[in-house]
Amino acid sequence: MKIIETIGEMQRESDSMRMAGDIISVVPTMGFLHEGHLELMRVAKRHSDKVVMTLFVNPTQFGPAEDFEAYPRDTEGDLEKARSLGVDIVFMPNAIEMYQEGCQTTVRVERITQPLCGLSRPGHFDGVTTVVNKLFNCTKPHLAIFGQKDYQQLAAISRMVMDLNMDIKIIGVPTVREPDGLAMSSRNSYLNPEERQSALCLKKSLDLANKMFQEGTKDARIIKETIESLIKAHPFTRIDYVSLCDPMTLEEIEILKDETLLALAVRVGKTRLIDNCLIR
Amino acid sequence: MKIIETIGEMQRESDSMRMAGDIISVVPTMGFLHEGHLELMRVAKRHSDKVVMTLFVNPTQFGPAEDFEAYPRDTEGDLEKARSLGVDIVFMPNAIEMYQEGCQTTVRVERITQPLCGLSRPGHFDGVTTVVNKLFNCTKPHLAIFGQKDYQQLAAISRMVMDLNMDIKIIGVPTVREPDGLAMSSRNSYLNPEERQSALCLKKSLDLANKMFQEGTKDARIIKETIESLIKAHPFTRIDYVSLCDPMTLEEIEILKDETLLALAVRVGKTRLIDNCLIR
Repeated sequence: MKIIETIGEMQRESDSMRMAGDIISVVPTMGFLHEGHLELMRVAKRHSDKVVMTLFVNPTQFGPAEDFEAYPRDTEGDLEKARSLGVDIVFMPNAIEMYQEGCQTTVRVERITQPLCGLSRPGHFDGVTTVVNKLFNCTKPHLAIFGQKDYQQLAAISRMVMDLNMDIKIIGVPTVREPDGLAMSSRNSYLNPEERQSALCLKKSLDLANKMFQEGTKDARIIKETIESLIKAHPFTRIDYVSLCDPMTLEEIEILKDETLLALAVRVGKTRLIDNCLIR
Repeated sequence: MKIIETIGEMQRESDSMRMAGDIISVVPTMGFLHEGHLELMRVAKRHSDKVVMTLFVNPTQFGPAEDFEAYPRDTEGDLEKARSLGVDIVFMPNAIEMYQEGCQTTVRVERITQPLCGLSRPGHFDGVTTVVNKLFNCTKPHLAIFGQKDYQQLAAISRMVMDLNMDIKIIGVPTVREPDGLAMSSRNSYLNPEERQSALCLKKSLDLANKMFQEGTKDARIIKETIESLIKAHPFTRIDYVSLCDPMTLEEIEILKDETLLALAVRVGKTRLIDNCLIR
């Protein structure tokens, strides 16, 4: 497994792989890898000849009051996991080369980044789409693999790739969960045992909404109110949003149709957790 | 010479050229080619194995009150000129494929697009950087060639390429002029004979400023006032801006240093003309 730290070297390596006819996939990560990330690598492996994992805790997607400094890091462990899964290249650029003096370019996806996490994390998605655009230009992949847990991020990146005619296929991978249902996330490491228990309210909400829909409830307001009560019954929780929306536009809906996205963000203690599912 | 009209076909063609080891250059144009464009093609030819010219009158870089509809077009003549210069591929996408329903992504270069033309053409540079980013993703060039006449455009594109780590070398080509000094521009075709005569005030201003600097004037205000008087002495003219600024940041300067950009925009009749030079 090669470890590459400079942008120029990564680009030359990707050029060589492409010249050799290899299909390149990229898995962008912020490290502190868990089973969810590993599943992305396995999917990448199945779809390509060469897997590039990027490891970069991107400062521009954290708000000033957010957890950039505290974000968990374990580079040695991450490299070991990547190696054991057969990742070919780990690209870990440094922030100084990624954001040079005078840099001032933003890639912005306008509408679908506004609701949901866009409301409580202003600037977050600009940071995400800009850095992913840069990482794509560094790694020159044919495919890129993202988790569906970050649904809005996946939607924004898919939209960016389509709108900018980037010749890259985006693959979304279903959320990987702990045995009790909690969606895997690097931020789960912030939870103390009691918060960890309360955090199950997210998955329970998804299940409950699905059950209500299957039993005939189509009124989004009723489903949301039921979910909000369920979450509030769990200690240490504070709802950021409960949204039933169109899976393409992320616009809020009132009556459930064939396919609806249920997206949640809940603070449990100081930790902000998200989860989602398609209801159909 | 191949003429390609769909994005997918262009991308596959560029992949093939790259697999064959060819160096690809792209010359983005809005057509109605004049000697300035032809010079860009010649430079492209010298620096690469395959020259791709794009021909697309991009609606998003025109303001609502600007000349998108009236912009001069001559596709047959353009193709003939491209052919005679040995262009390998003309990529002429249609606006419907370029801007699909729901598209909402903008590539924005923040600071250097604000002064000069940014003041009187809000949104113009967002349209330029976004479409050039798209055209780069369609044509996958190693090099891209732009004229120095559109100095701020060249600066914004160079900044975008650097900031987004696009693996493309940008080459700026000196302005080509008519025998009497008028910078070549597709918009010169709008000028009637009297306006055409007045339009010489732009080049005369550049020459005068250069002369003043060589003779020891370093005060930007004095040079600007002299130029403004010169322009106003020409009938049908209305000054949009006369700027002496830093060639990298485009920030206005008060005292001329080693190298200063003089940039002008002047309306002559209804036609808005720009020109610039480096004073050193």
